[in-house]
Amino acid sequence: MAKRTFPLSKVYSLLEPGPVVMVTTAHKGRANIMTMSWHTMMDFEPPIVGCVISNRDYTFSILRQTKECVINIPTVELAAKVVGCGNTSGRDVDKFKVFQLTPAAASLVKAPLIDECYANLECKVVDARMAAKYNFFILEVQKAWIAPSTKRRRTIHHLGKGMFMVAGRMIKLPSKMK
Amino acid sequence: MAKRTFPLSKVYSLLEPGPVVMVTTAHKGRANIMTMSWHTMMDFEPPIVGCVISNRDYTFSILRQTKECVINIPTVELAAKVVGCGNTSGRDVDKFKVFQLTPAAASLVKAPLIDECYANLECKVVDARMAAKYNFFILEVQKAWIAPSTKRRRTIHHLGKGMFMVAGRMIKLPSKMK
Repeated sequence: MAKRTFPLSKVYSLLEPGPVVMVTTAHKGRANIMTMSWHTMMDFEPPIVGCVISNRDYTFSILRQTKECVINIPTVELAAKVVGCGNTSGRDVDKFKVFQLTPAAASLVKAPLIDECYANLECKVVDARMAAKYNFFILEVQKAWIAPSTKRRRTIHHLGKGMFMVAGRMIKLPSKMK
Repeated sequence: MAKRTFPLSKVYSLLEPGPVVMVTTAHKGRANIMTMSWHTMMDFEPPIVGCVISNRDYTFSILRQTKECVINIPTVELAAKVVGCGNTSGRDVDKFKVFQLTPAAASLVKAPLIDECYANLECKVVDARMAAKYNFFILEVQKAWIAPSTKRRRTIHHLGKGMFMVAGRMIKLPSKMK
């Protein structure tokens, strides 16, 4: 999927509405994917993202060691693959192969971009002090990519047990909010 | 709005999809409301929620002092009031009066429930160690309320600058996810 760089100052607008994302990591030449819903913006620019990655997940130890990852944002067309990645472990399978997803080289980190995702955020871990107690990692987005299209992005939002809300219509209200 | 208690074990399903919420606090007999989008689930049960509340916001110091709040979840019908609460400060106005919202007594905290919101989560601050550096508070939901209705809840999800995505259709996929 052709992509252009996306301003770091606007990254919050991608993550703030709460989409399910896919976190990619790489370690010793092997890439992995993890499905994640527990994340929040923490600052606008540079964009700081907090996220919970369970210590039971394969990604946890990789992230602690490599201190880098990519947050990939899928749309509803990828829903089955998103769930598939959430229901399997990188300890057992190569998720890129099993789910036929395409790794693409990132520019600042070794973790790959998932080509099929419309947006990709290259991240470095900037604070892992809460990883032990809360499984909580603080990331800085250092490079962002987006597919240049004007069509609405149907992100998916997890409601539990495989039920997802698909992004609906947009409304605009007069606001002073960023 | 008539409400019943909602199981703490299911609270994640309300916050995980990323709705804009309204945080209520109370201090010295005065209640306030803050609009918030930067939050994430951190654990299932008891439900632990992490959230970013800027130190520029009136709510920041109240939350530090009282260590309790209510997370109220609005639907699209309340969108104008949600934005209104986001564009004003409790230092200047009584938001319950200005935006004609109804405070209702909570059971475990002094902060009021917003009656017009379909779900209300009574919370205590369990960790404020990251408030100084990241404006990040960790809350435990101790009591949850929900309006008993089967209709779909049109939560709103902020995309920046007053643009919101309204919760759309639901899809179900076979999943082992919680």
